[in-house]
Amino acid sequence: MTRKQLHLGLFLQGAGHHVAGWQMPGATYGSENLPHLQNVTRIAEEAKFDMVFLADGLTTSPTAHPSMVARLEPLTLLSALAMGTRHIGLAATASTTYGEPFHTARVFASLDHLSGGRAGWNVVTTSYARSAANFGKAHPDHDARYEIADEYVSVVRALWDSWEDDAYVQDAEEGRYIDPAKMHVLDHKGRYFEVKGPLNVTRPPQGHPVIIQAGSSDPGQELAARSADVVFTAQATLEGAKAFYDGLKARMAKYGRNPDELAIMPGAFVLIGDTRAEAEALLEQLQSRTDPAEAYPLLNERLGTDVSGYDIDGPLPDIPVSEEIRSRSELLIRLARSRNLTIRQLLNMVGAARGHLMLVGTAEEVADEIGAWFEAGAADGFNIMPAWFPKPLEDFATKVVPILQSRGLFREDYQGRTLREHLGLKRPRHPRAT
Amino acid sequence: MTRKQLHLGLFLQGAGHHVAGWQMPGATYGSENLPHLQNVTRIAEEAKFDMVFLADGLTTSPTAHPSMVARLEPLTLLSALAMGTRHIGLAATASTTYGEPFHTARVFASLDHLSGGRAGWNVVTTSYARSAANFGKAHPDHDARYEIADEYVSVVRALWDSWEDDAYVQDAEEGRYIDPAKMHVLDHKGRYFEVKGPLNVTRPPQGHPVIIQAGSSDPGQELAARSADVVFTAQATLEGAKAFYDGLKARMAKYGRNPDELAIMPGAFVLIGDTRAEAEALLEQLQSRTDPAEAYPLLNERLGTDVSGYDIDGPLPDIPVSEEIRSRSELLIRLARSRNLTIRQLLNMVGAARGHLMLVGTAEEVADEIGAWFEAGAADGFNIMPAWFPKPLEDFATKVVPILQSRGLFREDYQGRTLREHLGLKRPRHPRAT
Repeated sequence: MTRKQLHLGLFLQGAGHHVAGWQMPGATYGSENLPHLQNVTRIAEEAKFDMVFLADGLTTSPTAHPSMVARLEPLTLLSALAMGTRHIGLAATASTTYGEPFHTARVFASLDHLSGGRAGWNVVTTSYARSAANFGKAHPDHDARYEIADEYVSVVRALWDSWEDDAYVQDAEEGRYIDPAKMHVLDHKGRYFEVKGPLNVTRPPQGHPVIIQAGSSDPGQELAARSADVVFTAQATLEGAKAFYDGLKARMAKYGRNPDELAIMPGAFVLIGDTRAEAEALLEQLQSRTDPAEAYPLLNERLGTDVSGYDIDGPLPDIPVSEEIRSRSELLIRLARSRNLTIRQLLNMVGAARGHLMLVGTAEEVADEIGAWFEAGAADGFNIMPAWFPKPLEDFATKVVPILQSRGLFREDYQGRTLREHLGLKRPRHPRAT
Repeated sequence: MTRKQLHLGLFLQGAGHHVAGWQMPGATYGSENLPHLQNVTRIAEEAKFDMVFLADGLTTSPTAHPSMVARLEPLTLLSALAMGTRHIGLAATASTTYGEPFHTARVFASLDHLSGGRAGWNVVTTSYARSAANFGKAHPDHDARYEIADEYVSVVRALWDSWEDDAYVQDAEEGRYIDPAKMHVLDHKGRYFEVKGPLNVTRPPQGHPVIIQAGSSDPGQELAARSADVVFTAQATLEGAKAFYDGLKARMAKYGRNPDELAIMPGAFVLIGDTRAEAEALLEQLQSRTDPAEAYPLLNERLGTDVSGYDIDGPLPDIPVSEEIRSRSELLIRLARSRNLTIRQLLNMVGAARGHLMLVGTAEEVADEIGAWFEAGAADGFNIMPAWFPKPLEDFATKVVPILQSRGLFREDYQGRTLREHLGLKRPRHPRAT
C-alpha cells in the first residue's frame, strides 16, 4: 500500500506574496504578464504540484498589494495556462455573491473540458462590502452570503449534471448528435435562485470540477464540510492548524462524508537559503524594502481598523474584530496578542504572508516542518506562497520537493491526468447513472 | 495609396454551419472539441483572416443545431485559442441582458491582454425570452433591451478607461508599482446600472477591444451607428445588403462618426467545387442528409411559428413576424415571399445558412461574388460560414483567398498585430490623455 501523499498547490500571485518581492534582483512579476505566469506554472508542473491557484477580488485601489491592484480575470487566464501544460490542476476563485450560477457552471465546465479535467473552483462569498458598488446592489450580511453560497453551489453542481456522461453520441452514420433522453432539466426554484437549465455544456470530464473553500468562519466550515473537496486556510501554528483540521474533519460525518474526501491545505509562505541565516537575511532584505506607508493599508484592510495613528513600535491597541472580515481580522488580532507583536512586526507579517505559516530556512528545515504538520494531522498539504518569483519557487521545487519525494511524502510523477485524480478524489457519479 | 481592403471573419461553429455538415466524410466537428477548434482557427490565421467569431446562447434544447446544443463558453475558449495563434482576432458574443458590465469589462480586457490586443466583443441583447429562466428574472422587451445595451456598452467602455495607458509603472528601483494619479473612478449612476469602478485590469492593449454588433432592428442599427466597430448581418441579396449598408452608414454622421469607422460584414455560407455542378452536388448531398424532423425545429425557432403542420411542398402560410425575434423572423418571411419558396426550400435554406448569403460554386465564382458586393458598396467584408470543417474552409482559404489577394482586395500578410489594426481602426485615446 502506498503511503498517504501530501498535496501541493502554487498560490499564484503575479508579483509574489511579499509586498516588496517584485523589487528583488532577478524577480519576474506582473499579474497581467502572461509569459511570466506561464513560466511559474511550468515550474510548478515540473515539480508535480497538484494545482495552481488564483485568488480573486472584485475591487481594487491604488494601495492594494501589487499582485492584486490589477490582474487578469482568473478563468480567462487559466484557460490560457491550460495550453502548454498537461497535468497541473487549474483552480480559480469565483464569488457566489456577485455571480450567476448558470455562468459559473458554464465557465468552470468549459475550463474543465479545455484542460482535460483539471479545473477547480474556489468558492468565495466576497467579504468586502465595497464590492457591491461595482454591481449596483446591497452587500448581503455574512450569514446570508453563506446561505446564498450554499444554494449557489448546489445549483452549479446540478447544472453540471444537466447531461449524462454519454449524452454526446456524435454518430455520423446514424445522424444522431446527442441523445435527448440523457438531457435533464433542473427546474430549480430555491430561496435565492431560479434556474431552469439544462446547461449548454456537456458534463465536465471530472463530473464536477473540484470544489475548494477558503472561509474559516463557522458557516464557512459547514459549507466546506458539506460540499468542499479542498479547503485552503491561514494557519500560523501547528497547534492551531491541528485544532482547525480536527474540527473541520469532524463536521463531515453528519453529511455522510469520509474525512479522506476533503484535503485541508494551509497556505505556506516559503523562503529558502543554503543556511537559515541566509534565508532570514533575505526576509530582512524584503522587509527593509517595505515602506510602512505601503504596508499600513494592507494591515488596516485585513484588521478592519486603521491603526496607523498608533505607535509603530508599540503593541496592537484594543480593537474589535471586524464584522465584515471576521476570520481575517480575528486571525491577526489573535496572533498579535498571543505573540505580543508590535505594530511594526504585524506590518512585516502582513507584508509577507498575511498571517499564514512562514517557512523561512534551509530546504531541509522547510521539508521537516511540512512533514511535521502532515504527520501530526494538521494538514493534508500546503498551498505554497513564494515570497517572489521565480527564485523562491525554483528553490522550493528543486530543493524541498526532492526531499519530500525521498521521504515518500510526495509523488515522483503524476499518476493521473485530472485534478481529482491528483487529489485522490472520486469522480462523482451522475445521479441518473445506472 | 493602398486599395481599400476587405475583411474576413471565420464564423466558427463547431459542427459547421450546415445542420448535416458534421456527417460529411472527413468532417471534424464538435463545439467542445478543442484540437478541432484550434485546427480550423489556424487555417483561418494562415489565410490571414481578420478574426474568428463565436456566437453564443444562454439556453439549449435537444433540437438545437449540433453546433449549438452544447459548446464551450466563448471567453474561456478564445483564451485557449489565443495561445498558439499570433495575429488572428478573437471575437466572442456576450449578452448585455444577462451579464454585469463589470464582469464583461474584465473578461474582454483580460482576453485583450492575453492575446496582445486581439479581442472583440459581439454585443447582443439575447432575443429568446426563454433565456430568462436560467437567471430567475423577467425578459425585458425589445426596446428596453436596447436601452440597457446602450448604457451597458458605455459603462464597459468607461471601465476600460479606469487606468491611463501608462499607469502600470512597475519601477523596482523606485519601488513604485502603479501611479495612483492615473487611476480614475467611474462612479456611474445610470438608469439601469450603478458601477463605481475602477476596473481591476489595466487598460487593454487596444484601448477598447473591438465592438461588434449584430442586431438589424432599428434600435440595433442605432446602437451600431453610435458605438460599433463592426456589424455582422444576414443579407441574402446584393440589393438588400446595399440598402442596409447605405442606411446604416448614413446613421453614423449624427454621432460624429466617419463611415470608415465601421466595417459591415454580412455572413456568407461557402461551399466550393471544381465546377459549379460539383459544388451544387455537395449542397444536394447535405440536404439529402437533413431529416426534416431535425430541420423543422430550427425553422420554427427562427420564424417564431410552428409550420410543421402545413404542406411541406406548399408555400409558407400567412404567419406574423415574431415579436420576440423580429429581424430573424422578418428576414425569412420576406425571403419566402419574394422567392415563392416552399416550406421544404425554407427548411433547406435554414439548415444551410439560416437566411445568410450562400456562395456555392467555383472558387472563381465565389471570389467574383465577394468582389461584386465589395465593389458595389454592399459589404466591407464577410463573415465566412463554412458548410462543415475542415474542407469547405480549406477550399476557401487555399482557392478563394489567393484570387482575392491577386485582385488586390485582401492582404497578403498581416500588417499589424491587433484586431483594430487588421480592421484599419484607430486605437481610442484615453479621455484624460494629453
